Amino acid sequence: QVTEDFLIVESGMVYAGKHYLLDLYGCRHLDSVIQLEAIMRQAIEAADATLLHLHLHHFVPGCGVSGVAVLAESHISVHTWPERGFAAFDVFMCGRAKPEEAMRIIQERLEAQRVQSYLGRRGDQLT
Amino acid sequence: QVTEDFLIVESGMVYAGKHYLLDLYGCRHLDSVIQLEAIMRQAIEAADATLLHLHLHHFVPGCGVSGVAVLAESHISVHTWPERGFAAFDVFMCGRAKPEEAMRIIQERLEAQRVQSYLGRRGDQLT
Repeated sequence: QVTEDFLIVESGMVYAGKHYLLDLYGCRHLDSVIQLEAIMRQAIEAADATLLHLHLHHFVPGCGVSGVAVLAESHISVHTWPERGFAAFDVFMCGRAKPEEAMRIIQERLEAQRVQSYLGRRGDQLT
Repeated sequence: QVTEDFLIVESGMVYAGKHYLLDLYGCRHLDSVIQLEAIMRQAIEAADATLLHLHLHHFVPGCGVSGVAVLAESHISVHTWPERGFAAFDVFMCGRAKPEEAMRIIQERLEAQRVQSYLGRRGDQLT
């Protein structure tokens, strides 16, 4: 359920949005800007979110990528350490978007072998 | 202390970076892209971090702003709800940068009346 100004209402709690921190170990494709961009676009679509701006930065070939997608519903970011198979994503979505769907796509397409996640409910003291 | 590939070593822990989620209540300047950009630039400088890319999006005048700064050390993001005086920042920094300094600037310049923060140590299962 979502209020008039798009706050989330869930089991008596009211908050602005779900912010997941997603640590992914044993991943593939972490040095490819092209693959990471495709994965982020697919994740955004799966979440029913709206992309406003996308930027990916490749430090040097073979090294890590940093990327951010600004959404109408908040953002997704990624930072990768290909030499360690590690990716740090965050998925922050407000309103009716489905961040868990974005996370499912990200984990599957990076073929992550181990996942650790944290969920922060942002703005939970608004009311 | 920082390893050769820029992992943080702290009290026997090794991890990739500090990721703070920062909920700020009772803030000013939340509908001004110009002010928010200036605050982000000052915060990045205070943290000794390196800005690679900055993008701010103003939904409609009087309404919220979303912004991201991609850093050599990871990123800062902001999403604001001016009608509620609420801002959701995240400050993710690796290596030798000082995220706490960035947070201090953000809180001060937005004149936040109440602050709730969470610290995630990203990649703490890397070793």
